[in-house]
Amino acid sequence: MRRILLLVEYDGSGFAGLQRQRAGLRTVQGELEKALAAIGALPKAVAAGRTDAGVHALAMPFHFDLPGRIPTEKIPEALNRLLPEDLKALSAREVPPTFHARRDAESRTYLYRLLLRPHPSPLLRQRAWWLKGPLDLRAMEEALPLLLGRHNFLGFAKEEVRQGERELYEARLEALEGEVGLEVRLYFRGNSFLRGQVRGMVGTLVEIGRGKRPKESLKAILETGERRLAGPSAPPQGLYFVEATYEL
Amino acid sequence: MRRILLLVEYDGSGFAGLQRQRAGLRTVQGELEKALAAIGALPKAVAAGRTDAGVHALAMPFHFDLPGRIPTEKIPEALNRLLPEDLKALSAREVPPTFHARRDAESRTYLYRLLLRPHPSPLLRQRAWWLKGPLDLRAMEEALPLLLGRHNFLGFAKEEVRQGERELYEARLEALEGEVGLEVRLYFRGNSFLRGQVRGMVGTLVEIGRGKRPKESLKAILETGERRLAGPSAPPQGLYFVEATYEL
Repeated sequence: MRRILLLVEYDGSGFAGLQRQRAGLRTVQGELEKALAAIGALPKAVAAGRTDAGVHALAMPFHFDLPGRIPTEKIPEALNRLLPEDLKALSAREVPPTFHARRDAESRTYLYRLLLRPHPSPLLRQRAWWLKGPLDLRAMEEALPLLLGRHNFLGFAKEEVRQGERELYEARLEALEGEVGLEVRLYFRGNSFLRGQVRGMVGTLVEIGRGKRPKESLKAILETGERRLAGPSAPPQGLYFVEATYEL
Repeated sequence: MRRILLLVEYDGSGFAGLQRQRAGLRTVQGELEKALAAIGALPKAVAAGRTDAGVHALAMPFHFDLPGRIPTEKIPEALNRLLPEDLKALSAREVPPTFHARRDAESRTYLYRLLLRPHPSPLLRQRAWWLKGPLDLRAMEEALPLLLGRHNFLGFAKEEVRQGERELYEARLEALEGEVGLEVRLYFRGNSFLRGQVRGMVGTLVEIGRGKRPKESLKAILETGERRLAGPSAPPQGLYFVEATYEL
């Protein structure tokens, strides 16, 4: 029996999120576990994180156990023959039997893509959040350091959890001229994220960019943990789980 | 009555091509003409070019005539309220009543995107042609100048036409590290293109990149116009109509 760390990419548009749910809902975990069963693996996959419906992943780690003899480097191809077009395996490696994709992740990185232009983009409609108006990118950039460090991020999150303390290591903004217009990319790297936290932070940062609130307003959200103080949640299609890192 | 030059972007994945066809087939022209009728324009739109099912456009020009009073700069927004998500207007300008989007185009530019990596990409599956193996990009780049100039391009095209002579002004290759892997972008700018010509050229260039044929083999295709001498057609999802230019 080997424990395998598998990286997968997916287009979240056609999934009701990552996590297996009640029958009838198409999920990333559900589709992956079907393919795992078919190659003789134990049909239980544990992900590094959780993504909501419409959210994408460039490289989401999963672990699972494999009793069979298939060489580790052949696993992605074997799975890809079975997986749907919107979910594919990128790589596989053997890890110690105690490895855990969620508990052992030392950092997670998310990307949020904004598209700034006068009209919506057919080509990026499921890949970025289209915003019409101008944004004060400098104000947004100056707000990012306020989010860094260890804080209670509950004020940005979607769900009530007992413990909202997380650490944000990096928050970065990049502006670039994409194929269809000006793109703003926000990168967030932290030890762990609450459900909805990145979308809540992005929604609030966009309000700063629109001049609707000062950057200092972030402080009260972090101090009180009150969701009503933050901006609305940014839509799912702009969000990407980029990667998780492990000490391996 | 004003003649309007409209630029539209579309995701070709859900269309049976640009050109209006028999009832029941969803086309770019068909959807646009429905929206035009609804804003009081004459429901006939003439495009600068023709794209097949699955082929995208970053900015396809159309012309149409508008009797009503709606200000020209309001046209894109008015149309976008009616157009589907995968087809949106980008801009509108008034042009002389004799302007013709197809006949007056002085140049057209196409882009073809290749994705080179070991496994298929869910996020780019409808946006690029995934190729597994390595490609000799230098060999491909060195082959491009052979295509430049005025030639009979029938050997790359899909359809028999009487006259296959076209002029290619520019052929360029760019390699870049994209979000999900190495992308190779091929740009072609010419006065006009035959149906299937770009996909035929790309399929043949990929054979050169794979070492299956020498770059000199392009010469015989251009000299004889024989389709069987060229490589297979590259798939539609990697192709983008970028723009057409006019003397205006």
